[in-house]
Amino acid sequence: MPTGAYRVTAYDWVPRFARGLVRDLRVRWALEEAGLPYEIDLLPQGEQKSPAHRKRQPFGQVPVLDIGDGQESRTMFESGAIVLRIAEESGTLLPSDPAGRDETLSWIFAALNTVEPPIYSLATLIFAPSGPTSEAAETLRPWLRSMVAERLGDLSAALGDREYLTGGFTAADILMVTVLNNLRGTGLVEEHPVLVAYLSRATGRPAYQRALAGQLAAIDENAPRYRKAG
Amino acid sequence: MPTGAYRVTAYDWVPRFARGLVRDLRVRWALEEAGLPYEIDLLPQGEQKSPAHRKRQPFGQVPVLDIGDGQESRTMFESGAIVLRIAEESGTLLPSDPAGRDETLSWIFAALNTVEPPIYSLATLIFAPSGPTSEAAETLRPWLRSMVAERLGDLSAALGDREYLTGGFTAADILMVTVLNNLRGTGLVEEHPVLVAYLSRATGRPAYQRALAGQLAAIDENAPRYRKAG
Repeated sequence: MPTGAYRVTAYDWVPRFARGLVRDLRVRWALEEAGLPYEIDLLPQGEQKSPAHRKRQPFGQVPVLDIGDGQESRTMFESGAIVLRIAEESGTLLPSDPAGRDETLSWIFAALNTVEPPIYSLATLIFAPSGPTSEAAETLRPWLRSMVAERLGDLSAALGDREYLTGGFTAADILMVTVLNNLRGTGLVEEHPVLVAYLSRATGRPAYQRALAGQLAAIDENAPRYRKAG
Repeated sequence: MPTGAYRVTAYDWVPRFARGLVRDLRVRWALEEAGLPYEIDLLPQGEQKSPAHRKRQPFGQVPVLDIGDGQESRTMFESGAIVLRIAEESGTLLPSDPAGRDETLSWIFAALNTVEPPIYSLATLIFAPSGPTSEAAETLRPWLRSMVAERLGDLSAALGDREYLTGGFTAADILMVTVLNNLRGTGLVEEHPVLVAYLSRATGRPAYQRALAGQLAAIDENAPRYRKAG
């Protein structure tokens, strides 16, 4: 596939709390690990809910992946779907033997559908409107933390002394690590040395560092235009 | 693959609120749609957190899928992974052309990673411990409902007058419908006639009806043993 066959849509800027957490990071990381060339299309903040973008992404989110050129091009959405697609293309991020593939698929969905939902619930609290809703969110926080903590305990036990979820590094690790990143500042990951070491190992990979630098560079570059916004 | 090559682990009983919602339904439905024979292994309530079960399912959940017989057998977990795996095997639940496959993958992950998380947050509130946490959950409910409502509006607009998410019925519909089923009793789906018709169409399929009957039959059969519990 020629250079530029992959185009990733990302935000041109996000507020501080979201820096390094926007889901295009997952896609950038997968492409970097796979060694597949790609270009970035930056979507100005506010345009994610526009009719034009919703035609490409029904829920008004990023990332979007455009595959191919010209008349052959098509669009995918959902970071999980895109990472899986890239992993299949890569020959390295998803084992090709049936047992390895099945195990990796199990962990891909565990990251997004078992570990992420309680983390999403906890992380969502910061958006609670001020007043009674915000106060209720504070009251609920310890309980939601306990649900996340239970998942992290299970994950830590499953990981044990393995380097990555299924042994070698796969797409499942890209998704699990970017899910766990949402817990930064909560102190929850730090209760599990196994998970701290896992995150450190994964985020130390050169491909992760390039992906992160790419997301942050665009955000920094466009920050002056959004200064008033926050 | 011989009869009995697929074995699905499900609970032998669940409380009333979970009847028809346990995630083995997704797997049963996919197998019924694919016409693949399977057997059910019932896990007694309470054993899901046992070390023996955790060896097969790190988070102490159902379903688990066992594939193959004897020395060749292996295990998958996560309903999303299992449904995708069955869809690939089926030849009908996942288009084989690249564009159709990419679109279906996008919707598979949209169901589990964009539509389900806010529904999970809302549904989780019923488990809030009584006292201040439960009162806070009540206060938070309208706000969480509004987040679910936003997703449903997007989904309804995307579905429009299509019969199913990508046109014909796929694995993405199995996941989306079973995600939406968690909103029963909330009145949220009923605000969108498009979604009401979609759910009615999908759950009217004979394969869904067989899958649901299978889950409920086991629960009913074992109910006497759990009478004291709920």
